[in-house]
Amino acid sequence: MNKNSSNIMALSPTASNKRETVCIFGTGDFGRALGHKMIQSGYPVVYGSRSTQASSLIPKDAEVLSHAEAAQKATIIIIAIQRQHYNFLTSLAEILHGKILVDISNNVKLNQYPESNAEYLAQLVPGAKVVKAFNTVSAWALQSGTLDASRQVFVCGDDMEAKQMVMGIVRALGLTPLDQGSLLAAQEIENYPLQLFPMWKFPILLSFGLVTFFFFYCLIRDIIYPYVYENKDFSFFIAISIPNRICPILALILLSLVYLPGVLAAIIQLYRGTKYRRFPDWLDKWMLCRKQLGLVALAFASLHVLYTLIIPIRSFVRWRISSQIVSQALSNKTEPLNNTNAWLSDSYLALGILGFFLFVLLGITSLPSVSNNVNWREFRFVQSKLGYLTLVLCTAHTLVYGGKWFLSPSSYRWYLPSAYMLSLIVPCTVLVVKFVLIFPCLDKPLTQIRQGWERNPQYSE
Amino acid sequence: MNKNSSNIMALSPTASNKRETVCIFGTGDFGRALGHKMIQSGYPVVYGSRSTQASSLIPKDAEVLSHAEAAQKATIIIIAIQRQHYNFLTSLAEILHGKILVDISNNVKLNQYPESNAEYLAQLVPGAKVVKAFNTVSAWALQSGTLDASRQVFVCGDDMEAKQMVMGIVRALGLTPLDQGSLLAAQEIENYPLQLFPMWKFPILLSFGLVTFFFFYCLIRDIIYPYVYENKDFSFFIAISIPNRICPILALILLSLVYLPGVLAAIIQLYRGTKYRRFPDWLDKWMLCRKQLGLVALAFASLHVLYTLIIPIRSFVRWRISSQIVSQALSNKTEPLNNTNAWLSDSYLALGILGFFLFVLLGITSLPSVSNNVNWREFRFVQSKLGYLTLVLCTAHTLVYGGKWFLSPSSYRWYLPSAYMLSLIVPCTVLVVKFVLIFPCLDKPLTQIRQGWERNPQYSE
Amino acid sequence: MNKNSSNIMALSPTASNKRETVCIFGTGDFGRALGHKMIQSGYPVVYGSRSTQASSLIPKDAEVLSHAEAAQKATIIIIAIQRQHYNFLTSLAEILHGKILVDISNNVKLNQYPESNAEYLAQLVPGAKVVKAFNTVSAWALQSGTLDASRQVFVCGDDMEAKQMVMGIVRALGLTPLDQGSLLAAQEIENYPLQLFPMWKFPILLSFGLVTFFFFYCLIRDIIYPYVYENKDFSFFIAISIPNRICPILALILLSLVYLPGVLAAIIQLYRGTKYRRFPDWLDKWMLCRKQLGLVALAFASLHVLYTLIIPIRSFVRWRISSQIVSQALSNKTEPLNNTNAWLSDSYLALGILGFFLFVLLGITSLPSVSNNVNWREFRFVQSKLGYLTLVLCTAHTLVYGGKWFLSPSSYRWYLPSAYMLSLIVPCTVLVVKFVLIFPCLDKPLTQIRQGWERNPQYSE
Repeated sequence: MNKNSSNIMALSPTASNKRETVCIFGTGDFGRALGHKMIQSGYPVVYGSRSTQASSLIPKDAEVLSHAEAAQKATIIIIAIQRQHYNFLTSLAEILHGKILVDISNNVKLNQYPESNAEYLAQLVPGAKVVKAFNTVSAWALQSGTLDASRQVFVCGDDMEAKQMVMGIVRALGLTPLDQGSLLAAQEIENYPLQLFPMWKFPILLSFGLVTFFFFYCLIRDIIYPYVYENKDFSFFIAISIPNRICPILALILLSLVYLPGVLAAIIQLYRGTKYRRFPDWLDKWMLCRKQLGLVALAFASLHVLYTLIIPIRSFVRWRISSQIVSQALSNKTEPLNNTNAWLSDSYLALGILGFFLFVLLGITSLPSVSNNVNWREFRFVQSKLGYLTLVLCTAHTLVYGGKWFLSPSSYRWYLPSAYMLSLIVPCTVLVVKFVLIFPCLDKPLTQIRQGWERNPQYSE
Repeated sequence: MNKNSSNIMALSPTASNKRETVCIFGTGDFGRALGHKMIQSGYPVVYGSRSTQASSLIPKDAEVLSHAEAAQKATIIIIAIQRQHYNFLTSLAEILHGKILVDISNNVKLNQYPESNAEYLAQLVPGAKVVKAFNTVSAWALQSGTLDASRQVFVCGDDMEAKQMVMGIVRALGLTPLDQGSLLAAQEIENYPLQLFPMWKFPILLSFGLVTFFFFYCLIRDIIYPYVYENKDFSFFIAISIPNRICPILALILLSLVYLPGVLAAIIQLYRGTKYRRFPDWLDKWMLCRKQLGLVALAFASLHVLYTLIIPIRSFVRWRISSQIVSQALSNKTEPLNNTNAWLSDSYLALGILGFFLFVLLGITSLPSVSNNVNWREFRFVQSKLGYLTLVLCTAHTLVYGGKWFLSPSSYRWYLPSAYMLSLIVPCTVLVVKFVLIFPCLDKPLTQIRQGWERNPQYSE
Repeated sequence: MNKNSSNIMALSPTASNKRETVCIFGTGDFGRALGHKMIQSGYPVVYGSRSTQASSLIPKDAEVLSHAEAAQKATIIIIAIQRQHYNFLTSLAEILHGKILVDISNNVKLNQYPESNAEYLAQLVPGAKVVKAFNTVSAWALQSGTLDASRQVFVCGDDMEAKQMVMGIVRALGLTPLDQGSLLAAQEIENYPLQLFPMWKFPILLSFGLVTFFFFYCLIRDIIYPYVYENKDFSFFIAISIPNRICPILALILLSLVYLPGVLAAIIQLYRGTKYRRFPDWLDKWMLCRKQLGLVALAFASLHVLYTLIIPIRSFVRWRISSQIVSQALSNKTEPLNNTNAWLSDSYLALGILGFFLFVLLGITSLPSVSNNVNWREFRFVQSKLGYLTLVLCTAHTLVYGGKWFLSPSSYRWYLPSAYMLSLIVPCTVLVVKFVLIFPCLDKPLTQIRQGWERNPQYSE
């Protein structure tokens, strides 16, 4: 759009006089980006600044005035200034009386100040209506027009009308306002953009711990043991063979940990005879990060699939197979097909494929856009029924993988069982308990409890 | 948030007096969850209950009064009671006159009652304005704050203003209201949460039928035939070999069934000379579930890819290859490279890879969040142009797979052709008809018809 | 819904008299579809048409009147007529005075007329308030109820109130209105549905160019060279071997091109000492299509993975391996395990797997529904930190792939180095420059500049 057209554009809304002038205090990066976007959306914009000389960076159609002058021109004033400089606003208290101040500031650290910036602003200018908004939007994204990350703008404030007006602006800019309630929510909103995957912390830390443990476990069994007893150097197992042991183990353990809290909750509810008492805190938190646990498990399962499919291309595997065949040819004997082996191999691979396939299906349904398009019953069906089927298939895959050597003494090295046997403990426990809970004598009272029935009712509706 | 802060929070909106008090009849599971969420969003909440003694489960900042008292405090009354207990509301008819009653109830079965719960409520309390809402939201999801499943709240009602007010509350709770029209839509809205993938029923039933047929077909050809004639036990083929025959066959047939209705529709339109007559019902339904058919086809194609990639790891395959090589070595002969075989093998694999790659692309574009971000022309380009290319590649993949043995008499066992040959019937038909339809003599009239031209116009604009 | 119920439905909103009558000029395809949907949503609909005889295609509950009569019945008039026929509206100028005219037309070509259809309409009927809307919605999608493609309706217009009313209708139809500002935006809105992946054009053209170049490069080295010097026919390499060389090369080059503009921008900012000057145009455009570049790179990487995993199934590879083993057996020698080879092979495969895994993660986070649910810091972490890690892993994968033969003279054919060596130039440059930029002496000033500091400030806030 050329300069002419953008002048007309700025004129036309003024002519129809429908969009109210917005004042922005501060001509910094974010203030300019926001002003630019607002002018595009038809809002006349006035900047309040210490130096009123127009800068080439400020949008052309915006006026630049002193703070006091600019504030008088608008009802809504966006405070695009850092918290440290808020003090000067007290001198403008009279002019700001009754105005809507939009606090868009962020902090550098979580809970940096005792009160949120928005609450601090409300204390400084008690006569104004403070609304928190726009702090989750990036200046760069506003400018470039590529709002790849969140379009959601969290809005909070004590005055409903002020909040509605700000939410109207948010909508006009093509963003999605989310009303978060009173100004007390500002602290949480200010912390939001500082968070780095808070829900993923526990699953990822847990995985790191388990990966480290199983890495050293496999190192001892698969590299150090043959080195000590057979003087063979299998150090290159670190690249693929050991990761391909660790990944399926972690996938299975983490997947079973997704279903363990549900089983524990059922036991607690059956024991207490009511669902109206809070679960212990750790169980609540565990239940809230089940989705993340499941997705980390899926990541390990995917790596396991890739590591497994790459096996026939490995130089070591090709060498092993060819030397086996050569020695067979030299000793002039052809082995007949071992039908049991063929069955075991094929069925453990088939179980793994089906388990992984269902696992990926679960992952796809957990995508926000997909889960938004299913109703609650469908979501529960997928996550619970298909989820347990996945767990059964993956556990069976691991059990059949052990095959004939499962629990045979020769698979112990230095009294250590194979790593995959350790991974079976949690999923088998979950499946056994779940199987017990399906029996009518337990399932019936549990269903009743979950529908609100209480063994020892404490109150009556 | 500690008790203090939540008290202040409840106070502040009261002070600014902007959010209207909401009354909730019933202190059951959902009533409490909804009340809790509303208080969080700044609504003062009053519970109407038979027993007015405060329970520890009811949100702290909510009052609990008798039904009559509670109803008088609010304009909007949420009926969180089961339909069987609606009768007592007739006694409150006077107090409820002019109030907005929000019916949030669900049934246990589809079309359980002749009229929807909301219409029943409207009949019981004719003076009130009944709005249907919130029935698709789960109590658990509201409480835990993890609305993984749908955030969409279907709203319907005869009074526009009442509906607008309820939709305002829905928005304030961070949910997305969807206006579904007058109260007549309530039946459909009440049925919605009881549905379990209704659009997927036909594709899944069809797949089950085809899977069963092809399973027994392959069982006869690949396991029973060699057992009878060569006394070989290939029963382990059930695990991988036979699924890996069934999956590509189903993927190809279902994919071609996605494009068959479009071809049929074109023929019908050409024959009729107008697009302004309804297609037969079965064709309409078929066209509406094409996306689901395609996704089921993609699922089978993915399984086929996994089953195929796992082939070299199978114990049977390793045995077969090694015994071939050993016998070669023992007979002291080295086969030269068969260039035709190399060409056939490589090109059928390449066609399969490209076909699967495009198929996955199609699947990704059908994700709601992706298809929402493309315009209609782009969506049509992907689903139609790329879709046909996928079908061509997959059909070619199957044809080249047959290679030299295609239609050779030795591939018939008990007069049964190979299963993959059966799978080629539908896709080849679709492609041939589509190819014919591309010819200008047919394409031109079809385009005209689709732009609204009629051979025998019945009315004129 | 049977006829009865739909009559009641049309009646009830009239009774409560809340939804305003909407008039639609034109009974063409889109006019009818829109009218049908509006009646479903409770709007009384009147059609304005040249012929007022009811057609069986027009929704039953809608009246059909002459243009003048119909216009008088409603405030909002939807102009479902093609631009060529707009002229007759001048004769209705008086009746249309003060009405809201909704222009829903589209053109056949980009920028077909000097002014947009909506602006042309506004010139023809200067007394009316023109609003542009609905042009991005498909008639078919409205009718069938399957709005798979965009639910977004772009709305623009000079009169705020008129725009608000139209946006209200859009919302009532279950669509999402997006306010695009004044009527000047109409041109862009009318061009939108004609676009075909405009952001993808550059990445796809670039890929085509590179694919062509590398195809002929590999053709010369891998097929023509052995044919000329060794008289071997490897023409079947065209199907898999050569694509499997091209795909990883393109994936690596395109991925590094995603990170090159960021590095260039940093150098420019450091050189200029300010971030407040526009980047050159080509750099701006390049930065805006980084996401598309990355996704095309991911597509090539996925193809590379499929081509690689299929290797052991290829007839040529099976022949090569078996003839190697047979010749080993015949010469009666068994090779010992080459530990260096095992290390190189395993570690290059492992690097590739991890790189691809991270690459897929990046792809998943770029899905709109996922990126909408992360905050800005998380988005930056994934796209920048994980992105560079992916680039490092993929570059290392390619370097280790070269292994011992890297830069050895025997890998030159006709003085041409292996193709993968060419692919390393850009990624290595990017990584080296990025590594230099991390040093504190450069990183510190860069961070300051990006926070708004200027070496030679031109204005002061």
